[in-house]
Amino acid sequence: MRAEAFRALHRGPRALLLPNVWDVASARVIQQAGFPAIATTSAGIAFSLGYPDGEKISRDEMLEVVARITSSVTVPVTADVESGYGPRPEDAARTAEAVINAGAIGMNLEDGTEDPEHPLVDLSLQLEKIAAVREAARKSAVPLVLNARTDVYLRGVGAEGGRYDETVHRLSAFRDTDADCVFAPGLKEANTIKRLVSDLRCPLNILAGPGCPPIAELEQLGVARVSLGSAPMRATLGLLRRITNELKSTGTYQSLAGAPPHAEVNRLME
Amino acid sequence: MRAEAFRALHRGPRALLLPNVWDVASARVIQQAGFPAIATTSAGIAFSLGYPDGEKISRDEMLEVVARITSSVTVPVTADVESGYGPRPEDAARTAEAVINAGAIGMNLEDGTEDPEHPLVDLSLQLEKIAAVREAARKSAVPLVLNARTDVYLRGVGAEGGRYDETVHRLSAFRDTDADCVFAPGLKEANTIKRLVSDLRCPLNILAGPGCPPIAELEQLGVARVSLGSAPMRATLGLLRRITNELKSTGTYQSLAGAPPHAEVNRLME
Repeated sequence: MRAEAFRALHRGPRALLLPNVWDVASARVIQQAGFPAIATTSAGIAFSLGYPDGEKISRDEMLEVVARITSSVTVPVTADVESGYGPRPEDAARTAEAVINAGAIGMNLEDGTEDPEHPLVDLSLQLEKIAAVREAARKSAVPLVLNARTDVYLRGVGAEGGRYDETVHRLSAFRDTDADCVFAPGLKEANTIKRLVSDLRCPLNILAGPGCPPIAELEQLGVARVSLGSAPMRATLGLLRRITNELKSTGTYQSLAGAPPHAEVNRLME
Repeated sequence: MRAEAFRALHRGPRALLLPNVWDVASARVIQQAGFPAIATTSAGIAFSLGYPDGEKISRDEMLEVVARITSSVTVPVTADVESGYGPRPEDAARTAEAVINAGAIGMNLEDGTEDPEHPLVDLSLQLEKIAAVREAARKSAVPLVLNARTDVYLRGVGAEGGRYDETVHRLSAFRDTDADCVFAPGLKEANTIKRLVSDLRCPLNILAGPGCPPIAELEQLGVARVSLGSAPMRATLGLLRRITNELKSTGTYQSLAGAPPHAEVNRLME
């Protein structure tokens, strides 16, 4: 069972590393590199299709890309589906069904909103959404692996001194509503990560990247799952800028070095 | 008229630089960098959707991406549509109509086939295909800018000593069938490029990249248009490999340096 195999990867002995993907080519690269599972980045997918982040893309368009990815790799795929494409528990349930129909075996559900006056979904409603996802998965054949995320740190919600307690409060409730893993993007400080692992006693996902402890240290702190979000996709846009800047300034092609040859990428797609 | 403006860019004074794009995000980066027009890469689009190069993708899927790109930028867009998605002149005509419907104002048409025994379309048939594209454009409101490509050098067709003459033979015929620009990918050697410009006396497109003279030299040789093909897209896959190799080896995130911040990419998509 692919969902169960993916769930087991959250229980060690090593941290589950998920360099997130945004199209089939990036997914094939990650699979070829030997990663045992693949996670999508909703921001990266939205960007590649021309949308800003934050559910400007529709559920259907997002899941169309996810389905394209799941049908192009053999490893299990977990989908980042933002806050579930709609405010109600029924919306989250419909999104969970769409995730399963797209061939994915896991999903992220976040509690951030696009309303600066009210940046987080009320906890009671978020718990109803999580329960609705769980119920939708129970009705299907796929025991979806649910990664429940709070955006307290990412969006800097509330006074800085209160963020840790709010994060523990929310993530504990997500855990007790049967989330398989909880996710605190924006949190990078080693001691706080260690304390959070200890206070939660369930698999914790950290968003890694510059400024974050390296993987070995995250593992020592007890982090179960490490993802990179949209950073790899954004890094490719940075490279494209360097390529075009070089083309316009010196008129040379050094920044193209390291491109796998055409025939090699062709084989990767076969 | 966007097609006429794009056509005029082939007549100097500087070479038209086209770092090819494969999705909306890459197109937005190129537009923001100030390039006056955008060209797609069919290989890059195919790869991003999980197909090998060489018309394994359908005309509809290719043009769907082109349409998404044209509707996301304000500069003129020219579409790489391989050998026209079908062997007959009618197929090329239908593809030209689809290119126009997708909002593009130019297209590439190549003479390579997927048959190793017969790697180039017979010249007489290729000229009928070019004429059919011209006729389809004449019937529409868009005076499509046609870039007619021969794959003699790219695929190494025939004995090496005969390739130059075969290239001149084909490209002259394309020019005389009213192509706006002719394209000889695979040709990188300065003296040969200079001789070809002199023999053809019409706008010539060179596929640049490592091993090719820099832009200023290409301009001195008389090259009208310079594109990069799928190399920028493949370079991003190379970067993704470096990111994941680093993640798996040292467990660090240096290769993510240079990624534009999330908020900046968000603005780029608005």
